[in-house]
Order: sequence, then structure tokens, then C-alpha cells
Amino acid sequence: MFVVGSGARHLGDEMKRFSGDILEVEIMKFPDGEKYVRVLGSADEATVVQSTFKPQDEHLIELLLLGDALRERGAKRLRAVVPYLAYSRQDRVTKEGESISVRAVMKTIGLYYDELYVFDLHNPETLKFFPGRAVNVSPARAIAGYFKEKLGDGIVLAPDEGARERAKAVAERLGLEFSHFEKERISPTEVRMRPVDVNVTGKNVLIVDDIISTGGTMVKAATLLKEMGAGKVFVVATHGVFAEGAIERVSKAVDELAVTNTIPTPVSRISVVPDILSL
Amino acid sequence: MFVVGSGARHLGDEMKRFSGDILEVEIMKFPDGEKYVRVLGSADEATVVQSTFKPQDEHLIELLLLGDALRERGAKRLRAVVPYLAYSRQDRVTKEGESISVRAVMKTIGLYYDELYVFDLHNPETLKFFPGRAVNVSPARAIAGYFKEKLGDGIVLAPDEGARERAKAVAERLGLEFSHFEKERISPTEVRMRPVDVNVTGKNVLIVDDIISTGGTMVKAATLLKEMGAGKVFVVATHGVFAEGAIERVSKAVDELAVTNTIPTPVSRISVVPDILSL
Repeated sequence: MFVVGSGARHLGDEMKRFSGDILEVEIMKFPDGEKYVRVLGSADEATVVQSTFKPQDEHLIELLLLGDALRERGAKRLRAVVPYLAYSRQDRVTKEGESISVRAVMKTIGLYYDELYVFDLHNPETLKFFPGRAVNVSPARAIAGYFKEKLGDGIVLAPDEGARERAKAVAERLGLEFSHFEKERISPTEVRMRPVDVNVTGKNVLIVDDIISTGGTMVKAATLLKEMGAGKVFVVATHGVFAEGAIERVSKAVDELAVTNTIPTPVSRISVVPDILSL
Repeated sequence: MFVVGSGARHLGDEMKRFSGDILEVEIMKFPDGEKYVRVLGSADEATVVQSTFKPQDEHLIELLLLGDALRERGAKRLRAVVPYLAYSRQDRVTKEGESISVRAVMKTIGLYYDELYVFDLHNPETLKFFPGRAVNVSPARAIAGYFKEKLGDGIVLAPDEGARERAKAVAERLGLEFSHFEKERISPTEVRMRPVDVNVTGKNVLIVDDIISTGGTMVKAATLLKEMGAGKVFVVATHGVFAEGAIERVSKAVDELAVTNTIPTPVSRISVVPDILSL
């Protein structure tokens, strides 16, 4: 049985079209701001789908309340599918005294859920903070499917070496070449990006990342590729955590910007619902 | 060492005046809405003060992040002082399928904190959901102190039988009589309140409750007391969870409305800081 939280309502219609196993829920907010949840039925095993984009703390608490309600109705085994996991970038102490926020989030979800599925986690090592079974799902299949025709015999690039595995996963599904950008310091104040060991001239290029927020890196990378004589330049990310104006800025610099629907945005054109339903 | 969360910032100045043991923190919000916390120092034992009024989910998550940051800096023992505990009224299943939200909240706080202190919990039985030591602090001392002169040889009343212990605690500190209101059905559609076994004529009256939200009951009770010839009528509650217009509605019907500062409101005239510092 699937349960759709308010952070996954944008996935609900598509989920219903392909699965009859949806347990209805009532979710509302009291005038004082507290969430109210009620599950209209029970299930021994249930999978709660709840993405935790903004307002992320409300989505997180709601995920707990749904877990509590399902346990109260006798659920023995609960899975949380969290397409976008809030706080996933706060994954280490950079300045002494900081929290490792993703640890707090994973531990909290673990209070009610036996298994956790997230999509394209910023730092997969942080899965270890979840007390049960935690799985990082790759959106590579969905992304490859969406860009197959558009990209033709193009190249897949990661914006930095850390994202290389993501580019590789998409490229391999398409049988295409992949590489990554590296940063080169050309003066004390200036850094230049360049794609490593790959000739982009005349080739369509897809740049793949996990999260786009300001989009600054993507704009730089795309502009450079155009200067180098690339064909069409596409930008894709799993999670569209767009800062204000980012969609417009990136869209202007590229031939197409698309993200998956782990977060609902105007460019969430790639659906992770088939992946969710096959978990 | 005390740590003051953003839900207790309104208590911070008074706390600092009476205690030198405050560990500074940096708390801010990223543009995407995620909270960032950083503790500027470490302590083996720390007491985090964080009230969880609206936006309650943000205050709750922040409490966890502060716990995580303090543990990361080596804290061995953590206490959470939560003057107002969000979701405390969702303490039972009224309609099948509901969550017992206060249970989820208590379990979550228990992930990082060994002890929990709350003020005047709506249903003290729910303390059992906290995995460690949980204490319900009474604001009776502070309330009695504030109303001692104003009330004179008056009477303390609870708005219903369930709140009787609260009225008793205040009355006993003042050496005054106490009682409660009961509801009497006078027609199939009409219910009348009346104070039980007590003569209010010519007496000042203080009505004591845990939470005021709409204030409807308080207005009815106060109006009735005035009709019965009571002297001054005062209304006090621990937590001012006021719905829109409630402060004005209640203020008009009574001689004075006051609440404690577990939640900051324009009528939070009674401070729980001395109680917090003496925990």
C-alpha cells in the first residue's frame, strides 16, 4: 500500500494511474499551524511517499505523523520513500560547532520507518546514519530516457569530478562517452572550467548534476561549451532546488533545462514515479 | 550551560540577566528554507531551551539540530526545556486513523535529549512517551505571584473539571478558595456554565487554564461571573495560543487577561524564566 504525503501530492495522480494500492489520507493544518493527519484504512505494510522540499520541516514532521498513524493502525513494516531529502547537503562539519543535519533527519525518520529510499543523495555515505535499511535510488534510467533522442550521439558531462558517477550512469545507459569538468586556476583570482579529455566540437552535450540551486556553475559550463563549438547543450539535475531567478538564468544559457519531479518545479519534466512504483 | 534556541529568544535577555552560563549559538536559515545551527563552544552537559510555538515544526527540527551539534562537540548529557510543547493537544485517537502526534514529538526529542522539561502539559499522561526522564513543570508559583495583590481574598476557578488541579495549585499558594465550572444542559441545544459550590458575589475571581486559543469558554465564563455579581474577573493561562482576535475578545470581557511567556504574545506578562533557571 502506498500513502502519499503532502510533499508528494504532485506525484499522486501519476501514481494512481499506475497503481491501485493507494491508502487515502486526510492531511490538514489547524489554525495554530499544527499539522493533522489521518489514514483512512490500515495496512500491515505501507510505503509512505513524502518529498521534503520547502517547507521542509513541515514535510518531515508530517512524515513522522503519518508513520505514527500507520503504526497506531497496526502497521508492522513501514517504508519511507523520500524523493528529495531535506538537509542532505549539511552532511559534515565544515566549521566547528555545526550540526550534521542529515544525520538528525535520518535518525528521526528511523523512529517510525524500517526502510528509507531516497533519490540521488548528495552524499551517499550519509545513508549510514539511517538505523534501518537505506537505499539510494539513481534517476539515471529516467534521465537517459528523457534525453536519448535529443542527445543523439552526444556526450554526457559532470560539472565536477564529484558528480562523475552520475554522468557515467546516464552515459552508460545511452552507450555514450562521458567525462567531467575540472577547474583550472588561471590567475590568483580567476578559475576556468574545462572538460577533461573530450572533444565537444559539433557534439550535443548533456551536463548532469544532483542539485541545481543558483545555477551559476551550470551557466558557466554551458557558456564555455558553446564557445568550444558544442552543438546543443542540455542541463539536467535530479533535484531542482532553484534559488530565485535560477530557472531563467540557466534556461537562457542552454538549449534545455530539465529536472526530475522529486521537487515540483516548472521544469520538472522527468518523472521518478515509475522508479517509485518499482521499488 | 544553557543554549537558547530561536523559539526561546524572547526569554534570552532575562535568562542572561540571571545566569552567566549561556552558550552562544548561530542560527540562520539558508535561502532554500533549511535551518543552519552552530554552537560556539562545547559543554559536557547542556540545557537547550526551545519553545515550539508557530512555526512549530521549524522549532522542533531546530531543537534536534542543536542536539546534534552539541553531541558532535562531545556533550554527554542533554536536557531539553520546552516551555510550550507543540502537538500536546493531539494526545489521543479521536477518529480512527489519527496520529498521536505528541507521541511522535516526544520520541523525536528523545533521540538527542536525556531529559525533557515542559510547562503545564495539556495531558500529563503523555509524558510516558518520552524515552528518558520527563518532567511537567507547574507555572502556579509564577501565576500566583502575579495575581496575589490583584486578587486579594478572591476565588480561583477552573473553566472545567479537567483543569481543576491547575486552579487548586494556584489557590493553595495564595491560601484562597477554589472550584471549577460545570456545564449544565438547559435545553437540547443550549448549555449553561455554572461555578460549582462557590459564591462569587462581591469576590474577585481568577479563571485558570492551560491554553487559550479562541477564548470562547473564557468569555462565556467571565460574562457569567459578572452577571452573578462577581468583583473583578481575571483570566490567566499558561500558553497563549491565541487564534486571531482572541486577545481582543477575551480582554473586552474581563478586567485583565494575562498568560506566561512560554509563547511570546502581547499579554505574556508572567515570566517562567525563574522556573527555567531553577530546574
